[in-house]
Amino acid sequence: MNDSSTKKVAMTGAPAARRGRGRRPVAEVRSDVLTTAARLLLEEGLRAVTFERIARESGASKTTLYKWWPSPGALAAEAYFTQSRPHLEFPDTGDLRADLVAQLTSFTRLMTDGGAGKPISELIGAAQMDSDLAEAWSRTYALPRRELARRRLTAAQRAGQLRAEADLDIIIDQLWGACYHRLLVLKVPLADLDVERLVAHTLYGVR
Amino acid sequence: MNDSSTKKVAMTGAPAARRGRGRRPVAEVRSDVLTTAARLLLEEGLRAVTFERIARESGASKTTLYKWWPSPGALAAEAYFTQSRPHLEFPDTGDLRADLVAQLTSFTRLMTDGGAGKPISELIGAAQMDSDLAEAWSRTYALPRRELARRRLTAAQRAGQLRAEADLDIIIDQLWGACYHRLLVLKVPLADLDVERLVAHTLYGVR
Repeated sequence: MNDSSTKKVAMTGAPAARRGRGRRPVAEVRSDVLTTAARLLLEEGLRAVTFERIARESGASKTTLYKWWPSPGALAAEAYFTQSRPHLEFPDTGDLRADLVAQLTSFTRLMTDGGAGKPISELIGAAQMDSDLAEAWSRTYALPRRELARRRLTAAQRAGQLRAEADLDIIIDQLWGACYHRLLVLKVPLADLDVERLVAHTLYGVR
Repeated sequence: MNDSSTKKVAMTGAPAARRGRGRRPVAEVRSDVLTTAARLLLEEGLRAVTFERIARESGASKTTLYKWWPSPGALAAEAYFTQSRPHLEFPDTGDLRADLVAQLTSFTRLMTDGGAGKPISELIGAAQMDSDLAEAWSRTYALPRRELARRRLTAAQRAGQLRAEADLDIIIDQLWGACYHRLLVLKVPLADLDVERLVAHTLYGVR
């Protein structure tokens, strides 16, 4: 997974440099903070995500950061949700199989070529020993992402492309869980996962 | 997941107290060390697994531990594989569906009622920031477990119970990845996962 350090995800530009003392709109400060946190997470890893550095590089005060987020990890989780969202859209072309392949391909590319695999593994890893971070990660990233997947699968079920009695949460566990299984548990290259086969196996079975 | 602290896994008895200076057979020392490490991991969590405590409680010398394992985490990973193995057997009754349900039920019970969910999450979590531990976990636990699953699925494929072109590694990712997805990523109770449905979805698909 070390080649993740060479090709970096292009999704996080630095926020416009704004160090003036004039009061900025809250939404703008918040957006700059999230952009800065996501950039630090994805470019330098979880250890670089400190309130000290985010304050310095976003122009927000540390007091503001402490007021808005319980910990740098919680901020990193929300930042990753916000910044990755455009890259992890669920297409709806009406063709469920093609749409799942497209979304999972974007996801695995973000993790491999995009360089997100290592920092996101670190973030999920840190959440296993820190119940506040686990709560923030689950609430601001993992469960909202599951909700987006549910919506696409619900549309497919209504369109008769999934059996009425299919359990959508289990389908989500099978698809994205397969990716995380290689990334976090087996520690084998996610790039070797054949996403088209994963989707075909999940939709059509293996008997 | 906090109820994992009340009902403890019964798989790790304390090794027989042996503090005498007489030289014990290497295999016996090794076995006592693994039993002690697994007990500390499962009863008290990853932070309790130190060479200091394992030496004190197993009767092995710290020098021996440093010689045999690169780190306490690496020892914990091997200890967990050894101690969990009898609980995670792959039955082969000839009925693939029933056998997968039985094995995954044992696995999810070990994680929930057995109390292994929290310490194993901690161990996998720590592996995300520690490449030596990641290597030890993958080599001594995750990949050997995958190999055992592959053997059962290969037998099923030979018996015509899985399509010849089915990708066995993807099936493994779908089944156990689904469990780890809830445990590590979503942070929702694994006990709510309907294992029979997971197996049925994986074998027969959802179209």
